[in-house]
Order: sequence, then structure tokens, then C-alpha cells
Amino acid sequence: MDATEFRKFGKAAVDYLADYLENLRDRPVLPSVEPGYLQDLIPREVPQEPDKWQDILVDMERVIMPGVTHWHSPQFHAFYPTANSYPGIVGEMLSAGIGCLGFSWITSPACTELEVAMMDWLGKLIQLPQEFLNSSDGPGGGVIQGSASEATLVGLLAAKERTVRRIKTLHPEWDEGTIKGKLIAYSSDQSNSSVEKAGLLGSIPMRLLPTDDKCRLRGATLEEGIRSDVKKGLIPCYVVATLGTTGTCAFDCLEELGPICNREELWLHVDAAYAGSAFICPEFRHLMAGVHYADSYNFNPHKWMLVNFDCSAMWVKDSQYLVEAFSVDRIYLKHQHQGRAPDYRHWQIPLGRRFRSLKLWMVLRLYGIQGLQQHIRRQVSLAQEFETLLRGDSRFEIVTEISMGLVCFRLKGPDSLTKTLHDRLMARKKIYIIAATFRDKHILRFVVCSRMSEPRDIAFAWEEIRGQADQVLLGNNTGSDTPLSIHKTYSRSKTRKECPSNELKVNGITSGQA
Amino acid sequence: MDATEFRKFGKAAVDYLADYLENLRDRPVLPSVEPGYLQDLIPREVPQEPDKWQDILVDMERVIMPGVTHWHSPQFHAFYPTANSYPGIVGEMLSAGIGCLGFSWITSPACTELEVAMMDWLGKLIQLPQEFLNSSDGPGGGVIQGSASEATLVGLLAAKERTVRRIKTLHPEWDEGTIKGKLIAYSSDQSNSSVEKAGLLGSIPMRLLPTDDKCRLRGATLEEGIRSDVKKGLIPCYVVATLGTTGTCAFDCLEELGPICNREELWLHVDAAYAGSAFICPEFRHLMAGVHYADSYNFNPHKWMLVNFDCSAMWVKDSQYLVEAFSVDRIYLKHQHQGRAPDYRHWQIPLGRRFRSLKLWMVLRLYGIQGLQQHIRRQVSLAQEFETLLRGDSRFEIVTEISMGLVCFRLKGPDSLTKTLHDRLMARKKIYIIAATFRDKHILRFVVCSRMSEPRDIAFAWEEIRGQADQVLLGNNTGSDTPLSIHKTYSRSKTRKECPSNELKVNGITSGQA
Repeated sequence: MDATEFRKFGKAAVDYLADYLENLRDRPVLPSVEPGYLQDLIPREVPQEPDKWQDILVDMERVIMPGVTHWHSPQFHAFYPTANSYPGIVGEMLSAGIGCLGFSWITSPACTELEVAMMDWLGKLIQLPQEFLNSSDGPGGGVIQGSASEATLVGLLAAKERTVRRIKTLHPEWDEGTIKGKLIAYSSDQSNSSVEKAGLLGSIPMRLLPTDDKCRLRGATLEEGIRSDVKKGLIPCYVVATLGTTGTCAFDCLEELGPICNREELWLHVDAAYAGSAFICPEFRHLMAGVHYADSYNFNPHKWMLVNFDCSAMWVKDSQYLVEAFSVDRIYLKHQHQGRAPDYRHWQIPLGRRFRSLKLWMVLRLYGIQGLQQHIRRQVSLAQEFETLLRGDSRFEIVTEISMGLVCFRLKGPDSLTKTLHDRLMARKKIYIIAATFRDKHILRFVVCSRMSEPRDIAFAWEEIRGQADQVLLGNNTGSDTPLSIHKTYSRSKTRKECPSNELKVNGITSGQA
Repeated sequence: MDATEFRKFGKAAVDYLADYLENLRDRPVLPSVEPGYLQDLIPREVPQEPDKWQDILVDMERVIMPGVTHWHSPQFHAFYPTANSYPGIVGEMLSAGIGCLGFSWITSPACTELEVAMMDWLGKLIQLPQEFLNSSDGPGGGVIQGSASEATLVGLLAAKERTVRRIKTLHPEWDEGTIKGKLIAYSSDQSNSSVEKAGLLGSIPMRLLPTDDKCRLRGATLEEGIRSDVKKGLIPCYVVATLGTTGTCAFDCLEELGPICNREELWLHVDAAYAGSAFICPEFRHLMAGVHYADSYNFNPHKWMLVNFDCSAMWVKDSQYLVEAFSVDRIYLKHQHQGRAPDYRHWQIPLGRRFRSLKLWMVLRLYGIQGLQQHIRRQVSLAQEFETLLRGDSRFEIVTEISMGLVCFRLKGPDSLTKTLHDRLMARKKIYIIAATFRDKHILRFVVCSRMSEPRDIAFAWEEIRGQADQVLLGNNTGSDTPLSIHKTYSRSKTRKECPSNELKVNGITSGQA
């Protein structure tokens, strides 16, 4: 394909996407395909001769779209949002076209320096303490990670490095293996599954501590956990606090946890993956009080701040621990490190890195502070609209205080009612919401996700839920009108593989979906 | 920004990229900016009101391009290639626009299923043993990772899982911590720095074994390493063999290493990050002989196979070990796993995942087997052209057998000559090559990187090198005509941060660059 053809193909793809996004309401949010649907729609091998690009666009509708779950549909209310915006798409395109790898300054100075600048823009926007900024005098700074999972793991590895070094000075007679074998980390039973996974990957047991009646991790609980582990000879090392949990968007009590972590020299990582975007609005910023105690802080502009996945913003107070945990150059090249700009490859797990700050720059510039704040506030107010509709129907109960764009609710009465309601909704595929188990009760999570959501979409979802509740309460509880395709047998595939995820562990809770 | 504006902005961006890529020869391959150049070119904070998209495109030239190292310039001969192609760019764009997250089947069946299909297309194309394919009857399969670094780490964690389980049956009295503390892994002193980093991250010491005179890891060396470690009470666990090392594109002796790993029950991971793309051509496939011994195999279509970064192809013979190492669902949800399609979130480090198979599909279809093979063969033949030019000048020597698109050479005589030659070349910025230390000698690595490279570009690079060699040998050894900007002081930045990488550890070797 030459440049002339690319101009045609690229522009046709732009139109295809504009058409797709403008008309998302016309597509059912959930696909109706069965596992294995795609294999019969395409050849079994790479073609010998090149295909035509026009055929690709035809196949987007024939092969791909029937199997797409439309995350940006105004009828998508599952999980949490993943971002999508026009500026973000163009940013991704330009980043792909330039195609540089910014693993060190010289491999593309703009790639490192725009990231340094954008992480400062963003840090100032949410009023992070100065010491987290690249422009501070200290060793703090911000970096774009691929996901909150990676940020949590990076924090854990830095915590391990710092703790091992500290204990080594206290007990010079212990070897590193002995120290590492005693380390222990903490989070709440409401934290995202990626937190537990970080412990698994980084070989530090992650204790999931119980939360209070508002699903918050409290200081006294952490203190008690630390005390009992120290008594067993363990070495507390790392705490992951969540601002906006996956299950119910609860906020851990940073102002209680922070002083304990600082006093006990535990690395405090704050995971604000979803809710963190709201801190661009002053009225939500009280929810991050205590952030100055943290050693690292993370939120995902790729969730709720309109920057296409992947763009996970992470700041640390002292980047030296990252560099020392990650740099394999440390022995050989230490004397040659006389430099000045961050080598971001030492701040992350992989070596290579895309020019991700470009899309962040475009979103920040093309929305401006006002546009971004408007987006957050509109979504919060749509969630409140949904709450009002729910409260007007006495058959329903709201399970937890509504928080940000999330409303957790259920049908009053036995769990079977809520479960049947969810089954019906999923079989009809008009809206996509996921179920969860919360304090042993079956609940539904309704999240305002799409940036295109409008009051009419909230009304549509409510009508759908209300109507199906009518059916459930009328006793039409035979399940659903149509069978759930994903429960069918996928005969062509291998039995040893996992299921198409009709259960997802969202957090301490398990959430059934689809 | 609405859809109408997006159509304009997106199409203008397509034209911008087409213009950029068509006219890459007119831009100096290396930037002339100094560290910190960007901060004065943009405001210090996010704008209140939205900017205009037209200003973004103006700023691409004003702010970004002066700081871009042009990886796709035909004058870029550093590191190894990173891929860029028109179909790949459009694939990235469509993936961003659809913006689904495929962490489980239902979150977008097409995302999982196209990946399953594409990994089979690719596996068949390079004639991987059947047991690695998704379509096999066994537990094998392929997955797209973000980078070879991640693939190596994923392999290591699976190896750890498998070994701990095996040792546990032999020594039920040992706890997991004890077993993990004894594990040891192996690679060669020529392997990529990411291999050592994987050991660091995964808490398994990575022993870098010496190589033979052709930079290959041999069976006897591994055998000796295992023997001496077992004697010390350690438990050998994981071997990373490289096909196409970073330094000199050497190939470890898989046919010697494989049987040892199988016999000793060590997980064998094969890293063919760069050279693996060549195996789409039958004439290079003998270099992967012995791959049937491997437990996991990885190469990067985003390096030499025209798929834009990131797209790292990894296959495993038994996915169960990945799933068990990575799944935090295993306790709670085991009984509910009755499913059929891979939940790729358990095959990788992060939870979220982009629709990366889309760009792989586009590249495979729009080049076809013939187009892809032509690309590889042309680049190899261009490297041979460079070799011929070198051999015609008796002042130079070729250091290692030329391999794929890489030629390693130096000026005969003391190291200072080659070093001065490199300094001059980097100061002039007409071409970009990196220096390395190999067997205690200073060498230069010339790689054919750009898919747009033509014989005239090879001639251009040779003229530049030859001309500067004239100057060096005439005794004009004062260094360079112009000072290297990156050696200047970066007064505005923090001293504690690292340097703009004027040294890079490419592998066991350290490679100076720029």
C-alpha cells in the first residue's frame, strides 16, 4: 500500500468511525454471536496475494461488528467506562504514524518531554502536592503506565526495593532472600482484582483487610493487621488504598491510613483508577484528602477522562526507588548516569513505549478544563437522574450511597428476584449492566459510561429495567425470553480452556455478568 | 468536538501522516534539540477553553517534530527496526475508535476471537509445531503481548508456577517460600536486558551464561551451569534462549539446549523478538530448528513484520500454567470455569487489553504472504549490499558474520578510530547508528530498519561513513565538527534524574549511542 492508497483508506476509516460512533444507538449493545462464531467467517490462513483495503471495511461489518460489545453505546452501563473521544482517536493515529519508541531521551526527545509536561499539566489540574510533579525540585515525577494493574505492580516493586534496603541496614546479617520472604502487603477486600494479582506477580502476599459498613478501609483495621503480622515476624511493606472501589465506588480513609503508613514506613499507593478523573472538579477534591501521605498515586484518564485506552497516570514522590527496582544497568552503568531527563524505561515493566502523551495532549487541549469538567459533571448528574427514577419506584432499593456515576440497586425481597431480573435484561440485550454480590446480597451495578449518554438514554434504561421488573414480579420468572448464547456449548473449541466469562470477579465481590 | 469536526481533523491527520512518511528523507534523522527544549514551547497548564484542532497540527511541526527521532527514516540504522506500515496505522485507528476492552470473551467476542484466529494464521505462517496453535486439540495457544519484555516475564512466572508445583510433589514438607527462594534461571550474556529485568521483577536470579565464539549459548555451557547450581542446592527453573540476539543477531543452539531443558524439566522460552519475522521465509526457517523443544515462543511482528508497536506474538504449549500463575479467580471461581474461549486477561500482566489483533489482521491481509516475504528479503539483501561496500574498503573489518539486516563492523586498528568515527557521525546527524562494545572492542552496528530503505539509502549511509572515515584517518580526530547537544548541561532539570541516555545497555554488551 502506497501513500496515495493510504490517504483513501485512512479517510474512509475516519468516515467509518464517525458513522459508527454517531449511530451507536442503532446497534444492540451486546452481540448475539456464539463462541467460535468468527472462525467460519474468515479463511484459515494468511492470503498469498494482498487483499484490497475496500474488502477490509466490508469485513468490519461482516466479521467484526457482529462480535463487538459496544463500550461506547449509551446503553452500556457495565463495569466502569473506558474512554473514547475524537481527539483521543486522532492522537492514537498520529502516535501510530510517527511510530517512535521513547525508551530513552534520545530515541525521541519529544516523546519523553511531552510526557513530562503532560503529567505536570494533569498533576496541577487535580492539585496533587507539588512534590509529585516533574517540575518540583525533588525526586518526584509522573509517568504514563499502560494500566492501573501495572501501576500497582510498579508501586509494589518499588516498595519491595525500599523495604529490603531499609531492613538491610537494621539487620545486615539477613540476606535479601530472607527479607523478601517476610514481606507482606495490604489492601481492602473491596480493592480491584489487579491488586491481588500484583501481589501474586511480585511475590508478596496481599492481605485483603475487611472494610467498614461503607466499604471503606479504616485506619484501625490496618493498624491491627500490621500488629498481628509483626508479631508473626513478618515485615509490612506496601499498602494499596482505593479511591473509588470497583464494586461500589467507596473511598478508603486516606487520612487515617496515611499517618500509619508514614510512621511504619510502609509504601502507600493510592489507586483512584476510575474516580480520580473527578478530581479535576473542585467539588469532588475533598475525596482525595490525605493524598500527601501517599508515596505513589494513580488514576486512569483512559477510564473517565476521555483519553483512549491506554493511558494510566502515575506519580511518585521518589522516582529513585523505581529506577533502582527496574534498572538492570545499575551495576555496569552507574558511573555514566550523569543525566537530566527521565529514562522512562526504568519507570515501567516493558522496555518499549509508545508516544502516549500525544493523545493526552490532544484531549486536554481540545476539551480544555471547562469541557472536561462538564463531562464529569454531566455523568454524575445522569447517575443522579437514574437514582431519582429508582427512588420513585418502591419495589426497588438502593444498596449503597450513590457515588460518582455508579448506582447499586436491587429489587426488594429475595435475591432470586434480582437475579431473574438481570437474566431477563441480559437475554434481551437492550442494555448492559452487571450483577454483583454485595454483603451476601445479589445487586445490580448501573454505571453511566458513554460520553454520549443523555437523559433519554437514562430514561430508556429505566424503562427497560422497570418493564422487566414488572414481568418478574408478575411471576413470569421462567428466566428469559431467549436463551443466553454464551451458556451454550462451544463444541468446536477445547474443553480445557476457560469460559467466556459469565462470572467476573470485580473485586472482593464476585460479579456475574452477561 | 463533534463527528463533523472529527471527519475534518481525522482526514487532515491522515494527510499529515502521509506527507510525513512520504518525505521522511528530507528530515534529519536525529533531532538537534537540547534536553528541556519542549517546556518553553507550550503553556504550563491545561487551557481553560478548548483549543482549535487546526492549532494541534501546526504544533505538530512547531513543538513535536523538532524533538522526534525518525525511526522510519531510511537513514535510521540504530537498534533494530520498529514497525510502521499504512495498514498498521489504519488498524490502530480502527482499534482506537471501536475502543473495546477484550479482557473476557463477552466484553467483545470479536476481540478475543480475531486474536485466536490471527495467532493461528501467524503460527502456521512460520510453521510452528501444531501443539502451539489455538486450533490444536491440546492446551496450547497464542496470545498478543505488549512487548518481548512482557512475554519473557510471563514465561518466567509460568515456569515458576510449574516448578513450584513439581517440587511440592517431590518435597511436600517444603513450603512455597522455601522452594521459590531456591529457583534459578538461565540465559546468555548476549540476551536482551529485558531478560535480566524479568528475573529482577519475578524474583528469580537470572544467570547470564557465557557464549561461544559465535555468541551462541551452547548445550554444554547450560549443562555445566545446571550441574553447579544443583550442587549448591538451587532449583533450575527457566531458560531463555535467543534467536537473533540484540548485539550481533546470533542464534542460540536450540537443538542442544532443548533436550537438556526437557530432560531437566526446565521451562524453555525462546525469544526471537527481531529475527523471528524472517521465519515467514522458508530459506531462514532452519534457524528455528529445535523450536519443538520450547514451552513458549515469542517474536515481535512490531519489530520486523510491519505491524505497528505494540504487537508481540507469544505461543505456549500449555496455557494452563499461565492461567494458574495469573488468575486470582482460582480459589473463588474454580467450579464456575466450565468455559470454552480463552480469557486472555489470565495470559498477561494487565487486566485491560486493546483490540490489537485488528492491526495484525490488516497487515497480514493487505501485504499477503508474498508482500511480507518480499519485505524481509529486500531488507536482508540491502544489508548484503552494505556488506559488499564495506568489503571493498580495506580500512574496515566486519566483526561478526552478517546476520539478517545487521552488519557489525569497525575501523581496523585501535578502538579510538572507531570511536572517533562514531562521534563524528553522530555529531553530523546524517545517519543514526549505534556503537557497541564486543569482545572488548569498539564496534558499530548498522541495521537496515526502514521499510522505505532503498539501495540509494545504503549508498548514502556508506558515503557518509566512508567520508568521515577519511577524516578520521587523515588525523582530523578532534572529535566532531559540531558539539553533541546531549552532552551539554541541562540546567533547568533536576540533577537526580538520569541522563538522556548516551549509553544504552543493548545486551551483555553496552552500546553507546548518539
